[in-house]
Amino acid sequence: MSAVSVIGRGITSFGKKDESIKSMLIKACREALIEAGRPKVDAVFVGNFASGALANQEILGSVLANELGLGRIPALKVEGACASGGLAFRQAYQLVKAGEYKTVLVAGAEKMTGMDTETVTKAINLAMDNDSNEGASGLTFPGFFGVLANRYMYEYGAEKKHLAMVALKNRQYAISNPIAQFRKETSLYEIMNARPITDPLGLFDCSPISDGAAAVVIQQGENGVEILSSGQASGTPLMQEAEDLLHIPATYESAKRAYEAAGLEPKDIDVVELHDCFSMTEIIAIEELGFFEKGKGWEAIEQGLTKHGGIIPVNTSGGLLSKGHPIGATGIAQIIQIVDQLNGHACNQVGNARIGLAQNLGGTGAYSTVHILRRKGA
Amino acid sequence: MSAVSVIGRGITSFGKKDESIKSMLIKACREALIEAGRPKVDAVFVGNFASGALANQEILGSVLANELGLGRIPALKVEGACASGGLAFRQAYQLVKAGEYKTVLVAGAEKMTGMDTETVTKAINLAMDNDSNEGASGLTFPGFFGVLANRYMYEYGAEKKHLAMVALKNRQYAISNPIAQFRKETSLYEIMNARPITDPLGLFDCSPISDGAAAVVIQQGENGVEILSSGQASGTPLMQEAEDLLHIPATYESAKRAYEAAGLEPKDIDVVELHDCFSMTEIIAIEELGFFEKGKGWEAIEQGLTKHGGIIPVNTSGGLLSKGHPIGATGIAQIIQIVDQLNGHACNQVGNARIGLAQNLGGTGAYSTVHILRRKGA
Repeated sequence: MSAVSVIGRGITSFGKKDESIKSMLIKACREALIEAGRPKVDAVFVGNFASGALANQEILGSVLANELGLGRIPALKVEGACASGGLAFRQAYQLVKAGEYKTVLVAGAEKMTGMDTETVTKAINLAMDNDSNEGASGLTFPGFFGVLANRYMYEYGAEKKHLAMVALKNRQYAISNPIAQFRKETSLYEIMNARPITDPLGLFDCSPISDGAAAVVIQQGENGVEILSSGQASGTPLMQEAEDLLHIPATYESAKRAYEAAGLEPKDIDVVELHDCFSMTEIIAIEELGFFEKGKGWEAIEQGLTKHGGIIPVNTSGGLLSKGHPIGATGIAQIIQIVDQLNGHACNQVGNARIGLAQNLGGTGAYSTVHILRRKGA
Repeated sequence: MSAVSVIGRGITSFGKKDESIKSMLIKACREALIEAGRPKVDAVFVGNFASGALANQEILGSVLANELGLGRIPALKVEGACASGGLAFRQAYQLVKAGEYKTVLVAGAEKMTGMDTETVTKAINLAMDNDSNEGASGLTFPGFFGVLANRYMYEYGAEKKHLAMVALKNRQYAISNPIAQFRKETSLYEIMNARPITDPLGLFDCSPISDGAAAVVIQQGENGVEILSSGQASGTPLMQEAEDLLHIPATYESAKRAYEAAGLEPKDIDVVELHDCFSMTEIIAIEELGFFEKGKGWEAIEQGLTKHGGIIPVNTSGGLLSKGHPIGATGIAQIIQIVDQLNGHACNQVGNARIGLAQNLGGTGAYSTVHILRRKGA
């Protein structure tokens, strides 16, 4: 099995965009293909969650292959809720590593604005198991992660301000990210006193509704940022089946698999993008990924250990919370931020970043992917 | 690369079912897993087109892994319109062949009944490029294939009765298929005089709206029907971009790739399942797959060459036209019919069938997959 590298990347701005999902995808892909030196592409994989419900469009793989003039190459869409991008990237990586394809274009996108809140909420809830008593209960994702946050605070002594500190960190990082949805300076006071969404989560604790697309070109060889390993795991989509509300096994397992495959440990990682769909999710993720002990994540946040100068800078892109969260694009956008960090020209560059990790979550823990990447020549 | 075989299969009946997509998927998968001898499963791939729009449910991969108690294994959904099942099967095959997984469960399903015609028609049209002037024109799939049929008749001298003969053949096969949606004896007269859908296609020329699920277990080794090769290709989703309306390049290319990878030719194939979403599509497909010359498919139909005793028995399951077409399930159901044929216990068994081929189309030619399988020990 040969090395596999990311040799080009493209991304649109994230936010409310007066543009179709097709148009956004094409822009991100063209940018990635140009940066990659316009290689012959052998397949196109698209990560997307709910373009049927949200954008009146499926067959994104074929649309993209056709519009980009790539010929009659294999194409498809991969869906796994908010992990759709990470899953598409993993499929492409596995098949390039196996020698099935030499060069693959992997894109992710979601169109989420321009419709009423009910339509969007209903679409997002497609990522729950709706054929269950839980699906019928009216539980939403903010509701789920709000329960987790209350339980976490009860168990470990964290306070609402620690959630706010996650949101503040990510907002501060987003200010320097030209594609981020929210780049306005804010304060802990503003975050703490924002409109409540679901107790104890306020507006800034929740990732926004966003449009956007992202794409990377991956290729056999070492001509770029190398993908060292991929880990994927599933978990129950039902809250009532969780053995422990404060443990997201898919995140833990996917990381374990990726670390083992790369022969690395958390201490080897220099920079991380992880799935902060809610501020609470970031705190659990830094524990599941092995950077901090269980129940200690909030202390790490308080001590600034997940920022530049701390132990491990997390979500230097601004994360889902402030960069934005166009669902299918998120997993690819995370890879792009890690690639930029390892190429030495990211927003909020981490000095001498050698190894990076990206973690993409789907649902409340239904899916997780972890990818570990290494700087060229490092 | 090791051999890869289908070691178990399960399928629900097709038709109007008062049952959720999750319930159908679980039934098909349990049957397949039991037949396979309850192996340890390393990943679950689900082919599905539009369960968001049609069944208020995404994350089918995770739901299935969880409900079947398969543990925290990788899972995902693959979408490529009506080729979703074939694409999911291909992904699984490629990754087992590459050694990434040893055993994979591949399922396909669609829930399409129980809602109004407008909702279903709108969902099916998600398989067109709706962000184009063509998408806005009101063209539907019956409309598209009706145009093809008129053009084919004009170019080659076929008549409406040849379309009807395809529908009759597949209906006659379906009568013996216990899972088929339509098992009532019919006549050429009834088919020719059925309610018109879109000129020249009548009711029997169009595949129905169906619920259903199908699943197979594939594994490294030769302990079952061996998958010899997989071919996939894309094509334009736009009618206006077709170079030749009577040529579906994705079908042709996917077959070419599968033949080449297997080192086989059309004459080596003993039995075929192909994508007869409309009677017209079957005639074009038998030409594109190389069984008959371009423009001669209708003559082959007239001469009974695609039936038992002819050159190549086609759609012995009853095909999409009479077995039914629960979109995401179709590609897997085709594989199952070929597996049954090669195991020697299919409905409408073809004597001494050694090599079989399954072709699954998405959209109007946006996607096609072709898989070639071989009888155990043959």
